[in-house]
Formats: sequence, C-alpha cells, structure tokens
Amino acid sequence: MNSKHLTKGSRKPSPVRRGKLRLYSNRFCPYCQRVILVLDAKRIPYEVVNINLVNKPDWMFDKSPMGKVPALELDNGEVLYESLIIADYLDDKYNAHRLHAKDPLQKAKDQLLLKQFTKIINALLKTVSLGRIEHDEAQVISEGLAIFERELTDRPGPFFGGSRPGMLDYMIWPWCERSDVLKIYGKDYILKKEKYKQLMEWRKVMVEDEAVKKSWCSANTHIKYLQSSRAGVPNYDLLI
Amino acid sequence: MNSKHLTKGSRKPSPVRRGKLRLYSNRFCPYCQRVILVLDAKRIPYEVVNINLVNKPDWMFDKSPMGKVPALELDNGEVLYESLIIADYLDDKYNAHRLHAKDPLQKAKDQLLLKQFTKIINALLKTVSLGRIEHDEAQVISEGLAIFERELTDRPGPFFGGSRPGMLDYMIWPWCERSDVLKIYGKDYILKKEKYKQLMEWRKVMVEDEAVKKSWCSANTHIKYLQSSRAGVPNYDLLI
Repeated sequence: MNSKHLTKGSRKPSPVRRGKLRLYSNRFCPYCQRVILVLDAKRIPYEVVNINLVNKPDWMFDKSPMGKVPALELDNGEVLYESLIIADYLDDKYNAHRLHAKDPLQKAKDQLLLKQFTKIINALLKTVSLGRIEHDEAQVISEGLAIFERELTDRPGPFFGGSRPGMLDYMIWPWCERSDVLKIYGKDYILKKEKYKQLMEWRKVMVEDEAVKKSWCSANTHIKYLQSSRAGVPNYDLLI
Repeated sequence: MNSKHLTKGSRKPSPVRRGKLRLYSNRFCPYCQRVILVLDAKRIPYEVVNINLVNKPDWMFDKSPMGKVPALELDNGEVLYESLIIADYLDDKYNAHRLHAKDPLQKAKDQLLLKQFTKIINALLKTVSLGRIEHDEAQVISEGLAIFERELTDRPGPFFGGSRPGMLDYMIWPWCERSDVLKIYGKDYILKKEKYKQLMEWRKVMVEDEAVKKSWCSANTHIKYLQSSRAGVPNYDLLI
C-alpha cells in the first residue's frame, strides 16, 4: 500500500496475472481508500500500483479516462474506474461478507445518505481549494453531519451497517478519518464534538475495525500531506 | 399517467394503501419517466400523483427534500427519491424480469456508461437553459453519443441489454425520446443521423417496446411542452 508512486517515464506494469486484481491508486486519495477498504473488508487479495497524480505515467492514460484513480484492472485486461462503481462491483462479484444491506429498502436509504454525503465532500473540496472555510461550507458540513448523527441515533449501531461496518460506513470513512484536518483552516472552525456524540462513538469503533486499521493514517500525517500539497509539491511518498 | 398536476392548495392524498406504490411524478420530467419505465417494464402496479413543479403543493415538501420528483411512496409511509436510486430499489425488490445485467462486470460497465450519459444530460440542460446550443455542448453531445454508438456496435443488440431493453436502455431513453427537440435550437445543429446508425436502429426498436409505448410522447408534444416552459408557463396538463 505504501509503494513508491510511479511517474511519467516509469515502466508499464506487466499484465495482471490470472485470478489477480490490481488497483491503480494513490496513498492519500480518499476515493482510492474507499476501494481499498472494500477489498480489505471482504478479504479480496489485490496488488497496488501507486500513481503520482501530478506527473502521471503515460501508460496510465490507457487504463482509465484522464488516467484517473482509483482504477481496478482485472485479469482479462478490463479496467473499471469510479470508486462507487468499483465498490458495487466488488460487493456483487465477491459474495462473501456482503457490505450492502440485504434489504432493498435499507440499501436504497443508505444510497440516499451517501448521495447526501457527497455534499459534505464537495464542501470539503472547496475548503481545501480556497485554503479557508467559508460560512456556507461550514453550514453544509454541520447540517450534513447532523443528518448522519440523527441516523446513527435511530439505528441499532454501533455502525451504520449494524454490528459491523457496511458499505455506507466504508464509503464515508475516508473523509471522516481526515476530519481533524479541518482545524488547520482556522481555530474558529473546530467540529463541535458535543454536537456529534454518536458520530464520535462511531469513529472510535471504526478505527478498531481490521480493514480500517490497514489503511488508517493519523491526523498529523494527513495534515503533513495536505501541507505539502498546498505548497504545490504533494509528498505522496510521505510514508515510505 | 396523464392526471392533472396538483398545485399549492390541493388536497393531500390519503396514505398509500397496503401493498400499493405511489409515484409522485410530472408528465414531462425525464427523471420521472425513468422510474415509470422501470415500473412498466417490470409490470409493477402503481398509482401516479402528478405534481406541478412551479407551484408545488405544500405537503409535497414533507414527501421529499424540496418536494423533488420523482418520489416513490411505499405503503409504510417511507419515501424514496432520486431516479437512479428508485430504479435500483425496484429492480432489487421485484426480482421478476431483472433489468440490471446479472454479470457484475457487465453491470459495472453499464454503470460507467450511465455516468458518461450524465455529461450528455448536463449539456442538454445547459442548452435548454441558454435557449441555444453552444459549440462546447454540441461537442459533449456528439462525443458522448459516439461512445454509445460504438458500444452498440460491440454488443450483440439490438438493445444495450441484449435481446430486450435493460436498465441502461431505460435510464437513457427519456432524453433519447426527446432528441428531436434539439432542432428548435437552430438548423445548424441537427443530429447527423448517418453518424449514429446503430443508435437510430436502437431508437426504432425502443419505441416498439411495450413499456416505452406507455409513456412515449411525440417530438411535437415535447416541443410544445418545451415552448410553454420557455415562455414561463409550463403546460404540464398538455395531454389532458
């Protein structure tokens, strides 16, 4: 997972061996982490090829549109991209340890919540690109989290998926792992932990999950990476 | 399907009866048509409550965020929204006549194509809101359609779903039904039919499909509706 990120000029990896899966990824990309969480939670063996996103290898553009990661290469040469589509594919293909709710209504409600979470992600992206948190984004984030807080209160828990993390838990996790990064955008905006008691409990049990542990990074590491990225030289190989 | 569109002040419908489904819809909304196509293709009984989108009943805001349609109300009072989430729910819940590909890889590839189609939808939305087609949008539409044309050439056909329409066919159909509407945006831009031979053949077989027939409207009807909408007084009840 912490292999060196390949750049322009690097040698194209050999074809994927029979029965294997290869994930083109990036150590600090939250969308990539989604796929890694699904692979690890379902205990599907895979290899990782890390890609330098500011200086992509030419051959990466043959793998996915604009060389986007995550991209999952199958042993027949087909490549899937888009984190949610890959996650669904893996859950459909590898039946053991299903992550989506079995009940169609519960699954649909989880999908609506995930759609809701996209608004939080967009507010975070805007915050990172501006380098400060604006009132509107702070509001989207706190209103969005309030919905998730209520939802956790209504569910048996401790996970959204029940007694163990399900697809919704893993699909929102990468941004929740990074939530303490927000503090670098000013001391005025620190997530008020007393407003999100259930979510704070959920975070505690999530970091104990075996799949989460595998890709987890500390807030300090995320901040260090983010600072390198803001300085224009993202240090993807920070953990090597 | 052609019932009068309810407005502010209209009486709230009684709760959904046991074992029934109710779709809050709008006769000219392509997203609503997606859900209607799935319901009709799977022969699931449902009732329609049409909503006037410029003058929504107050109670509609209790049904879905901002009173959005399509919204599917179940007999337990739960309401689902977002056309693709409703479509997936119906396909999961009602197993007979599955619309999604059974093979997980094929399903994932269809999902990627559907994501691709969203770019075409956005270009169409921009065209309608500007009242003219710009070079960029024309390019997105023609490049997008070229992908679908190639895809149909590669598949056994005549539908994307094979010998009968599948989820991808129905999810893109509402905009394809309306494609001749583009001609009102200037004679310079008429879809060059010789470039899209496979898609033209596909359109011919789609209009013969029983589910498609049920909600189908002629290009003239779509144009009449669009003109009323552009004039600021959308005539939702055009077909009554």
